[in-house]
Amino acid sequence: MILSENTESAQNRIPSTSTPICPGEWPGSDTAHLAILGYDPFRYYTGRGPIESCGAGIEVKPGDIAFRVNFGTVKGKGSVFDKVVVDRRAGRIQDKQVLVEAVNREVRIDGVEFILGNASGHRAALVFRGENLSDRITDSDPKKVGEKVKRVKALDGEAEFIERSHEVLDSHPFNEERAKNGMPKANVLLLRGVGKAVHVPSFEEKYGMKMAVIAGTTLIKGIGRLLKADVIENERFTGSRDTDLELKVKTAVESLETHDFVLLHIKAPDEFGHDGDFEGKKEFIEKIDSAIKPLTELDFSKVCLVVLADHTTPVSVKDHTADPVPLTIVCEGVRSDEVEKFSEFHAYRGGLCRIRGMDLMNIVLDLTGKAKKYGA
Amino acid sequence: MILSENTESAQNRIPSTSTPICPGEWPGSDTAHLAILGYDPFRYYTGRGPIESCGAGIEVKPGDIAFRVNFGTVKGKGSVFDKVVVDRRAGRIQDKQVLVEAVNREVRIDGVEFILGNASGHRAALVFRGENLSDRITDSDPKKVGEKVKRVKALDGEAEFIERSHEVLDSHPFNEERAKNGMPKANVLLLRGVGKAVHVPSFEEKYGMKMAVIAGTTLIKGIGRLLKADVIENERFTGSRDTDLELKVKTAVESLETHDFVLLHIKAPDEFGHDGDFEGKKEFIEKIDSAIKPLTELDFSKVCLVVLADHTTPVSVKDHTADPVPLTIVCEGVRSDEVEKFSEFHAYRGGLCRIRGMDLMNIVLDLTGKAKKYGA
Repeated sequence: MILSENTESAQNRIPSTSTPICPGEWPGSDTAHLAILGYDPFRYYTGRGPIESCGAGIEVKPGDIAFRVNFGTVKGKGSVFDKVVVDRRAGRIQDKQVLVEAVNREVRIDGVEFILGNASGHRAALVFRGENLSDRITDSDPKKVGEKVKRVKALDGEAEFIERSHEVLDSHPFNEERAKNGMPKANVLLLRGVGKAVHVPSFEEKYGMKMAVIAGTTLIKGIGRLLKADVIENERFTGSRDTDLELKVKTAVESLETHDFVLLHIKAPDEFGHDGDFEGKKEFIEKIDSAIKPLTELDFSKVCLVVLADHTTPVSVKDHTADPVPLTIVCEGVRSDEVEKFSEFHAYRGGLCRIRGMDLMNIVLDLTGKAKKYGA
Repeated sequence: MILSENTESAQNRIPSTSTPICPGEWPGSDTAHLAILGYDPFRYYTGRGPIESCGAGIEVKPGDIAFRVNFGTVKGKGSVFDKVVVDRRAGRIQDKQVLVEAVNREVRIDGVEFILGNASGHRAALVFRGENLSDRITDSDPKKVGEKVKRVKALDGEAEFIERSHEVLDSHPFNEERAKNGMPKANVLLLRGVGKAVHVPSFEEKYGMKMAVIAGTTLIKGIGRLLKADVIENERFTGSRDTDLELKVKTAVESLETHDFVLLHIKAPDEFGHDGDFEGKKEFIEKIDSAIKPLTELDFSKVCLVVLADHTTPVSVKDHTADPVPLTIVCEGVRSDEVEKFSEFHAYRGGLCRIRGMDLMNIVLDLTGKAKKYGA
C-alpha cells in the first residue's frame, strides 16, 4: 500500500529518502507514480494525454494519439485560429456532457477516428485513432487569455477537428443559452499534452497482484486505468482539500480484503504547495496524521505499508522539485534503523540510504517474499 | 582482496552497504559474485550450468549448452522416463569417477559432442557442444523423490543422452557391486540449470590483474575458472563448516606475493543461514573474526582489503534476500568515516552510502591508483 503527496506517519521502520525518478529530475505526478510503481517513465510515458484519456474513461490503445483538453471560450471573427481566447476554462464550466456528446456525434474528419471523453470541471480528453498517426503535433492552447488559438501543426486532421468542433460548439443551443445568461460559451477545445500511446503491461501481468487505486485526481485515476487496476470511485474523493480522508483510509483498509495491492493517493498537500500556502499545508498534513491512524493498526505480519510522497512541492517554489522524499516501509521482518521521525531532515539518515523510485517495487517484492532468486 | 558470505572484520575504514545486484533483486551466489567482480550478470549470466561446468574443470566455450547434474537413483520398468526417482543423490555417492569415465567413453549421440565432468559428492556437470545448439531445454530433475524422471523438452539429443547414459550406468559393474552391497545405484543423470555459454572476458583481460581464487565451493571455483583466474585447490578448503579457515587465510596472504588480486571466499555462514541456525552462524562468524587476524596486519600502503558479503541469508528467511550487505574497504589514503562497527545496523551510516555491487571494482581501481581518467 502506498500513500503519496507529502504525508507523515506516526510509525516507521526503514525511513529513507527516495528520488522519485533520478536525482535532479523534476517529476510530474504521473511520471513519479509510474516510477514508484516500477514502470520506467522514460519508456512508458509519452505525454500526459494518454493518461488523462485513461482517466476520462477512454480505452486507449497503442498507437492512439491522445491529448488533454480544456473547454475554453474564444471571441472574434473568421476561422477559430483567428479568434482570441478570452477564458481558458469557459467560466469553469461543469455540466458540459451535452457538448461532449455533440462533438462526438457531429464532427467527422476524413480518415481519422476520434473519441472525446468528459472529465471533471472544464477538462476533457481527446484520442485520435488511425493507421500510423503522428504525435508531432503542437498545442492549440495558447496558455494565456488574450492570445489567439494556436494553429496546431499536425499531420492527421487535428486542425480540422478544432475548426469543426468549434463550429459545432459555438452554435450549440446549450451555448446559446449560456450566452443569453451572461456566461462564457464553451466554444473551443484547447489541446495540449499530446502523447502517442504505447503498450503498457498491466500491474497484474507485471507483478501477479491485483491493484486497487483510491484517488480523486483524474491523473492518478488515469495511471490506475493505464495499469488496468480497479479504480474505486466515490464522489467524496475530490482530489482536493475537501476530500474525505477518513473514508479514503477506510476504503483502503477494506480494499486489502479484495486486492493484493492498494494505492491510496492524497493530493491536497501538493495543492497547498503550488499555492505557496505554508499554514494550509501544515494543517492538512496534521489532518492526514490523524486520519491514517487505522493504517498504523494493520497486522504487519500480513500487510506491508509503504508511505512516501511522489515528489516535493515546496511552498517556497510553488512547483514540483527534485528533492528526495521521505519513505518508510513497515512490515514484519524488515531491517530497522535508528531514525524515529518521518521528515525530510531525518529520513536521509535511514537504513535504506538513497534509492530511486524505480527500485521501490523490487524492495517491496523482496520484503514480502515475492521476489525470485536471480542465479543460484 | 575480497572476503565474502556474511563475515566480520575487526578493522574498518569506509564501511557501507552494498546492494549486490539491484535493490530488491534476490541474488544468487553466482550472479552476486559476477556483479561484485564488475561483470554485469544480466549480460554474462545465462544459467548455473556454464559456471558449474567451469567449476568441474570443463573448458566451456561460447555456444556450449551446459547443465548442473546430479547422479541419482531410478527404479522401475521401461524407458528411463518411465522410471521413478527414488534418490536424487544416489545415496550421496562420492567415488563415481569410474561412472563419469564410462559415460564419456560409451555414450554416443548423433551430431552432438558432450563432456561429462566430475564434481564433489553426487554432483557433476555436463556440456553439449555443436553448431547452433538451443538452450530452450527443460530440466530432467523432478526435484522430488517418488516422481518420474522428467522428459526433457529439447532439440539436440539431450533426451537421447539421458536414455543412453542410463543404460550404460544401470548395467555398469560398479553399480552392480553397489546394488549387491545394498547401496542405491547411481544410474541416472538428473539435469538442471541449463545455460548457453557466452564469451566472458578474463579478469586479466578486463583489469590487467592476475587473480587467485581461494574457495571450497564448486560454484565459486567455477566463477574463478570462468574468469580464467588461478583457482588454488586444497582438500582442506571444503566450502562448508569444517573448512580450514586458518589455512585459507594463510594461502590468501601468500597468494598476494604471486597475484595482483586475491578472492577469498568463506561459505559456511550462508549454510547456517539456509539451515536457520542462528547460534551456529554466530559462532562461525566469531571463528572468522579470529581467523582473519593476519589480514588485519597486512601493509595497507601496499594492499587494499575489501570485506563484504555477496548477499544476506537471514536465519529467519533461510534463503538469500536482497537486503544491503555491510562492506568495508581498508587501504592507505582511503577516506574514512565515523562508523566503528562492521554490521548491518552500523554500515548503512557509512561514508560510501549505498552502492551497487557493480560499482565496487571501479572504486577499488580508483583507490589503488589503477583507474583511468575519463575526460581531461
